[in-house]
Amino acid sequence: MNSSTQTLDTFNRLLQTAKTVSDLSSASAVLGWDQETYMPDGAAEERAEQLSTLQALIHQMMTSDEIGTLIDQLGSNGSEGELEEWQRATLREIIRNREQAVKLPEAFVREMSKVTSLAQQSWKRGRMAADFSIFRDDLARIIDIKRRHADYIGFAENPYDALIDLYEPGMTAAQLRPVFDRLKAGTVRLLDKINASPNPVSDDILFTQFGAEKQVAFAKDTIKQIGFNFTDGRVDLSAHPFCTSFGIRDVRLTTRVYEDDLRSCLFGLIHEAGHGMYEQGIDRQYTRTPLAEGTSMGIHESQSLFWENMIGRSPEFWRWAYPALQSTFPDRLSSISAEEFFRIVNVMKPSMIRVEADELTYNLHIILRFEIEDDLINGRLEVDHIPEVWNAKMEEYLGIVPANDAEGCLQDVHWSFGGQGYFPSYSLGKLYAAMFQRVMLKDIPDYYGQIERGEFGEILGWLRTHIHRWGKAKSPSELTMEICGEPLSESAFLEYIEGKIDRVYY
Amino acid sequence: MNSSTQTLDTFNRLLQTAKTVSDLSSASAVLGWDQETYMPDGAAEERAEQLSTLQALIHQMMTSDEIGTLIDQLGSNGSEGELEEWQRATLREIIRNREQAVKLPEAFVREMSKVTSLAQQSWKRGRMAADFSIFRDDLARIIDIKRRHADYIGFAENPYDALIDLYEPGMTAAQLRPVFDRLKAGTVRLLDKINASPNPVSDDILFTQFGAEKQVAFAKDTIKQIGFNFTDGRVDLSAHPFCTSFGIRDVRLTTRVYEDDLRSCLFGLIHEAGHGMYEQGIDRQYTRTPLAEGTSMGIHESQSLFWENMIGRSPEFWRWAYPALQSTFPDRLSSISAEEFFRIVNVMKPSMIRVEADELTYNLHIILRFEIEDDLINGRLEVDHIPEVWNAKMEEYLGIVPANDAEGCLQDVHWSFGGQGYFPSYSLGKLYAAMFQRVMLKDIPDYYGQIERGEFGEILGWLRTHIHRWGKAKSPSELTMEICGEPLSESAFLEYIEGKIDRVYY
Repeated sequence: MNSSTQTLDTFNRLLQTAKTVSDLSSASAVLGWDQETYMPDGAAEERAEQLSTLQALIHQMMTSDEIGTLIDQLGSNGSEGELEEWQRATLREIIRNREQAVKLPEAFVREMSKVTSLAQQSWKRGRMAADFSIFRDDLARIIDIKRRHADYIGFAENPYDALIDLYEPGMTAAQLRPVFDRLKAGTVRLLDKINASPNPVSDDILFTQFGAEKQVAFAKDTIKQIGFNFTDGRVDLSAHPFCTSFGIRDVRLTTRVYEDDLRSCLFGLIHEAGHGMYEQGIDRQYTRTPLAEGTSMGIHESQSLFWENMIGRSPEFWRWAYPALQSTFPDRLSSISAEEFFRIVNVMKPSMIRVEADELTYNLHIILRFEIEDDLINGRLEVDHIPEVWNAKMEEYLGIVPANDAEGCLQDVHWSFGGQGYFPSYSLGKLYAAMFQRVMLKDIPDYYGQIERGEFGEILGWLRTHIHRWGKAKSPSELTMEICGEPLSESAFLEYIEGKIDRVYY
Repeated sequence: MNSSTQTLDTFNRLLQTAKTVSDLSSASAVLGWDQETYMPDGAAEERAEQLSTLQALIHQMMTSDEIGTLIDQLGSNGSEGELEEWQRATLREIIRNREQAVKLPEAFVREMSKVTSLAQQSWKRGRMAADFSIFRDDLARIIDIKRRHADYIGFAENPYDALIDLYEPGMTAAQLRPVFDRLKAGTVRLLDKINASPNPVSDDILFTQFGAEKQVAFAKDTIKQIGFNFTDGRVDLSAHPFCTSFGIRDVRLTTRVYEDDLRSCLFGLIHEAGHGMYEQGIDRQYTRTPLAEGTSMGIHESQSLFWENMIGRSPEFWRWAYPALQSTFPDRLSSISAEEFFRIVNVMKPSMIRVEADELTYNLHIILRFEIEDDLINGRLEVDHIPEVWNAKMEEYLGIVPANDAEGCLQDVHWSFGGQGYFPSYSLGKLYAAMFQRVMLKDIPDYYGQIERGEFGEILGWLRTHIHRWGKAKSPSELTMEICGEPLSESAFLEYIEGKIDRVYY
């Protein structure tokens, strides 16, 4: 066997293990999806055991000596160069995943799993009672665990970076802080502009009776037309909307529907379809490899938010889609024009709950969480002081103060499952999306015309070519630099959102 | 550590592995269920890989040296006696599963998987074209493989026994043959009796338009009332009805619905609910162990057929259930009485297709397949002669001859997936069910009165106590002997079915 053949042989053996791990992850995702959509209540305990067994097997495989030896063989003799580009990217991801797995002692993984499992219960109780003290002790334990988590992973200067990196590889708090500061300042300025509008708008009309079945049918039809592929995916109902994938050709979306809020089902499903089209667009050559997923949560959110807000909340989109919506709900919408409807779904005003926030003020919710997490992980803020700091920042940034902890610092599930470091992804998604759209507008001169005619093929094709097909083969910063020629910045988003404010409010 | 503690420690380590295997099997079942209910078409290839990975892991675990050593430690020093009864039963099943896994070389398992996978395609094509020659070569390969399969497993006198044993542990062709011969003779005699009836009945009324949603709602309501637990299970739609379980508290049923056949959805779902209540009734102590499933396919079918036919097709059941059905379909059923409806759903007459056959003639379809399989595996019949032998037996036993192979020897999927040895389970189910009912009638004096009042608690309770709770802890023959005090026999069934014929036709 010559060196090149041997390298390929070693790589293929490694790839085979990675595919087994991928299959187990997909199986785990199926069980998770079923749990949120169809699983009967009685099954909870057995399902937890099944999921825990699959996770344990994945961890065992990733930390096995066998994988370690194969990686060493490929790395030590410098034979990596004999591999094709996608093979090198695959190897890089396998190594990254193994390193993350190996760094965490099994006892720590078990401890983290147990503490977060219990914390999710106390968080639920706390939120129900609107009482932070019920969640306080568990949150303190989690903050302690996440600090140790960061220590195990390792970091250059800020332990919070190690946690952010889990969701946005390569991103740091130091990179985010100036961007977020400028974003915050820009947002505050724009809120003043909205307050000074001579032409205010109310969204009350959306909160009346819209039949659930019709809402779901309309939303499904909409995402089909923008390009979600129902041969390789489907839509079900769940309490909280999500997108999950069991492979490039099996992408599941969920939605929820409220009869007294037209927005939730429709914009929620367009959002999830944005995630789903990303997964469906990954190069099929990457099937069952670690490359077969979105490159980061921030880039993932850029896809969902692009479709939800930049397409789905544009005036051009509603010039095309509104007649169908109107004829679905003639009683409710016959007296409202497409232009009015566009304005209504773009109402921007400070509100308490992040997931219900508009496109503009949403980022303030994220920046608040980012700052609090950074301070908590670095020991500059004690858990006991979270409610008062939260409320003070709400007042400072949004001009409103939560009446209680349920609509304040207890509103999100993330901290209870140890998701510290995740929140920045949401705002990153908005910033990336605006940066991408700016380039797209140059590449597709008829961009708005196409949206207005309900033609989404070229836009989706652009996303496929530049983003989707690469999966995890390119990092978020590589993608951004290649597409936009500049690193992450808030300017495209502020420009975009000011344009919309001018359109809606002036 | 004293000997007893050590034994328990060894057993618990073995049990832990068995639980991991159980979790993987459950995960595999979830993926299989999803494949038949919700999976989008595009996902087929990735799903096949995921399922194959799970199967391979299960096989690796079951054949591992680790399990072998633990079993040897428990067996060799005679320490089994220190275990509790359920622990000994668990150990017995682990040993049985391991032996079955170890006996088959991995190359053979792969060959069998590949040949049957291809054969299912050629069988579909052959059935579509009604041409046995398309399936012929693959079937010849499968018969060869199943003979080798039997050799690997081992058998005392008849290789077919090794295959039957996969579905009905302990059962042999020699035990079945005299029972089936008497069953055949009895059935032929009863068919003559039906033909001589002064009071014939037609089921044409069932083949008109019955709304699909109403059918499903009625069927779901019915199985809820007989005792299927929707907290620990649910119902979905699929092309072919089935029951699968991902644990004692997660039992999934499926049904299909034809607007031009009222029977399919209703009796199909009662049938599957019979399977499902068996799974739901297993002692929860057995969760995640090899005892947490039905003891054999024959006993499993006894439960489904008991509820479908003995309860669901009884005159008492329809005196209770008919008013609700009538008010669900007033247009169709207002002119038919409960008594007439009972007679209509019990029409017995020879027909070509096994799955559509009535309670009586169904067994002739099974006996025909049993005889052909026995001859094929023993080399007394060549694959080429299957169509002519099939048609000759159809004429001899049922008095009708298939017009082509699609409604003849190509009608069932079983041979194409290597399920030789499975068919007898269906008739065993009927015989067991009648034997159990005979005892139940003594134990529950008000049996028919309870059915007529829609009270199924005591009947289900009887099944739970005597059958369900034991799972695989008792073998089919143990169960039968303990409950009935006699081994398998056709007499209870013939007595039961003649009673029904007298009721329907005389």
